[in-house]
Amino acid sequence: MSDSVLRKATSFGRWTGVELLQYKREGEAPFSGVTRQVLFEDAGGAQWRYFEVAPGGHTTLERHAHTHAVMVLNGSGHCLVGDRVYSLEEHDLVSVPPLTWHQFRASDSGALGFLCLVRHERDRPQLPSEEELARLRADPLLAAFIRT
Amino acid sequence: MSDSVLRKATSFGRWTGVELLQYKREGEAPFSGVTRQVLFEDAGGAQWRYFEVAPGGHTTLERHAHTHAVMVLNGSGHCLVGDRVYSLEEHDLVSVPPLTWHQFRASDSGALGFLCLVRHERDRPQLPSEEELARLRADPLLAAFIRT
Repeated sequence: MSDSVLRKATSFGRWTGVELLQYKREGEAPFSGVTRQVLFEDAGGAQWRYFEVAPGGHTTLERHAHTHAVMVLNGSGHCLVGDRVYSLEEHDLVSVPPLTWHQFRASDSGALGFLCLVRHERDRPQLPSEEELARLRADPLLAAFIRT
Repeated sequence: MSDSVLRKATSFGRWTGVELLQYKREGEAPFSGVTRQVLFEDAGGAQWRYFEVAPGGHTTLERHAHTHAVMVLNGSGHCLVGDRVYSLEEHDLVSVPPLTWHQFRASDSGALGFLCLVRHERDRPQLPSEEELARLRADPLLAAFIRT
């Protein structure tokens, strides 16, 4: 029972018995320097993941009908949710509502690690069209933030 | 949207807009120095809570059919799961299987804070009978650990 009950944290964002996975398939969507780990396949019915964004890296700018419940576990960075950019520090909580554009970025000097809970049955992410990107980039702050 | 999207961590185990709650009703079950906070009512369909056990404190020794997915967020301590005691440090992961006795204790020198995911629809915890307590306490290590 020992192995399945306790999985030790071994270092910054790594655990015994937890496999380091690709964030997404290469070419599937734009991203940079992101890894994914599934900490619990069944966490009260949800899937509990840990994502780590390397210094200067970013997740995909996307939206979907399912929600994200997020907690920053390590480091700092920023996220775009909807039409605003938020500064993120350790243990901050982020709620990503349905069908809301979002992107996470690490700072240039350090990685950003965050926990993210999702439903098992969920829709596939949508990428922004050129028109939607142009609309977001009409805001200079968002234009400066977004990575594609 | 700002308030609902981002809730800042303000200090060790506290967040803006997150209410500090009783762990359980007094007299309902034995415990000592435990607080509860609901971080996300809906985290991928699960309820995402943060529990903090004061130095020397302990949660209730109990079991139930629903599972717990746990991550230590702050501090250190120990937990009993089944018939073993595990040492806990920051970011360690604990899986509590169905109908398995469990109890979390902080160290005497510092608080233990942990995240815990559960299903919304779940059965009520069971307390050990005198016979079950005696069976657990037949193991000297468990006898020394258990608080009731």
